[in-house]
Amino acid sequence: MDKKIIITISREFGSGGRFIGEDVAKKLGIAFYDKAIIEMASDKTGFSPDYIKENEQKLTSPSLFNFAISGSYAGNMVFGNGESLQDTMFFAQSNVIKEIASKHSCVIVGRCADYVLEKFDNCINIFIHSDMQSKINRAVNEYKLDSNSVEKILKDRDKLRAKHYNYYTGRVWGDARNYHACFNSDYIGLEKVEDIIVDMAKSL
Amino acid sequence: MDKKIIITISREFGSGGRFIGEDVAKKLGIAFYDKAIIEMASDKTGFSPDYIKENEQKLTSPSLFNFAISGSYAGNMVFGNGESLQDTMFFAQSNVIKEIASKHSCVIVGRCADYVLEKFDNCINIFIHSDMQSKINRAVNEYKLDSNSVEKILKDRDKLRAKHYNYYTGRVWGDARNYHACFNSDYIGLEKVEDIIVDMAKSL
Repeated sequence: MDKKIIITISREFGSGGRFIGEDVAKKLGIAFYDKAIIEMASDKTGFSPDYIKENEQKLTSPSLFNFAISGSYAGNMVFGNGESLQDTMFFAQSNVIKEIASKHSCVIVGRCADYVLEKFDNCINIFIHSDMQSKINRAVNEYKLDSNSVEKILKDRDKLRAKHYNYYTGRVWGDARNYHACFNSDYIGLEKVEDIIVDMAKSL
Repeated sequence: MDKKIIITISREFGSGGRFIGEDVAKKLGIAFYDKAIIEMASDKTGFSPDYIKENEQKLTSPSLFNFAISGSYAGNMVFGNGESLQDTMFFAQSNVIKEIASKHSCVIVGRCADYVLEKFDNCINIFIHSDMQSKINRAVNEYKLDSNSVEKILKDRDKLRAKHYNYYTGRVWGDARNYHACFNSDYIGLEKVEDIIVDMAKSL
């Protein structure tokens, strides 16, 4: 790519969004970031990568956001600056995402990157979803989830993602108007979706 | 096209969705339906096309849907079968859409066609949106709306569309998961969006 481009991919769990992101990055010859962002945020916060992974989308603690609105909070400890643990992890990952996007072309999966990078030029925001049966098949075959409980796991994971996104962005997760393009990956076909995104990126 | 395919296009007002639909139909050599559905529904209901156009998205009367839920209603007249005027118009247009889609390949714009045809094979559902400034430019230049009031008109029209869609489908208008693909028309470019849809249709 001659010019710097950023592609963010938000996705339903089991929709193949991460695979699409990886392949798009390969096809364009640019960097791919998913879990690496956790490692990089770990360096900034002192939290272990496993701790961040486990807790980044659990909005159980009082937060700077709630505190700012209500002026008070009941319950658990927050940091001296009013940030909850989740806020600290979100801000650390957001800073990592901005640093990455400032440096070079890349594909970034998840972590509200579409919102975090909304002021960046040449940033294409994509949302990937699929029908439930295709997501179940992928989760059982690729992620080896138990077929008896997989549907509930898929729904719970997406509820967490939606809650996390809505909370930190003030937008509705999955609303088409937050993204430049959205695709049902299995209906269209993963490879075709990848090719469409690659073509969009090359046309920017 | 060898096989019958149906493309439904839902769109924000001013997003260029209708233009995209017309061009996609031309490029694929298939029929295009937008306002013609009103004329055809007029023949079935006895309402004039102008009356349908004016009232189809105004949910001011009590409805079969409300009546079925509440078991009672207060206010205006409904038909003997419990349908409001809007219900009658919606059902008549839905029947027209199903008849059309049973006969031949086509592009259908608006009128909850994605929901009405959800049991049909080879039906690609598209949602087109755009940023406010592009919609304003299109509405002023193409539709000759007054530049001072255009933004409010755009927002009001989309609120009506959303309310109408949510009411008759039980789904959320603009939620990416209701559609196979969604595009920001002006960011991607109308012609590129058309080509992507044409390519998707040819790949079915």
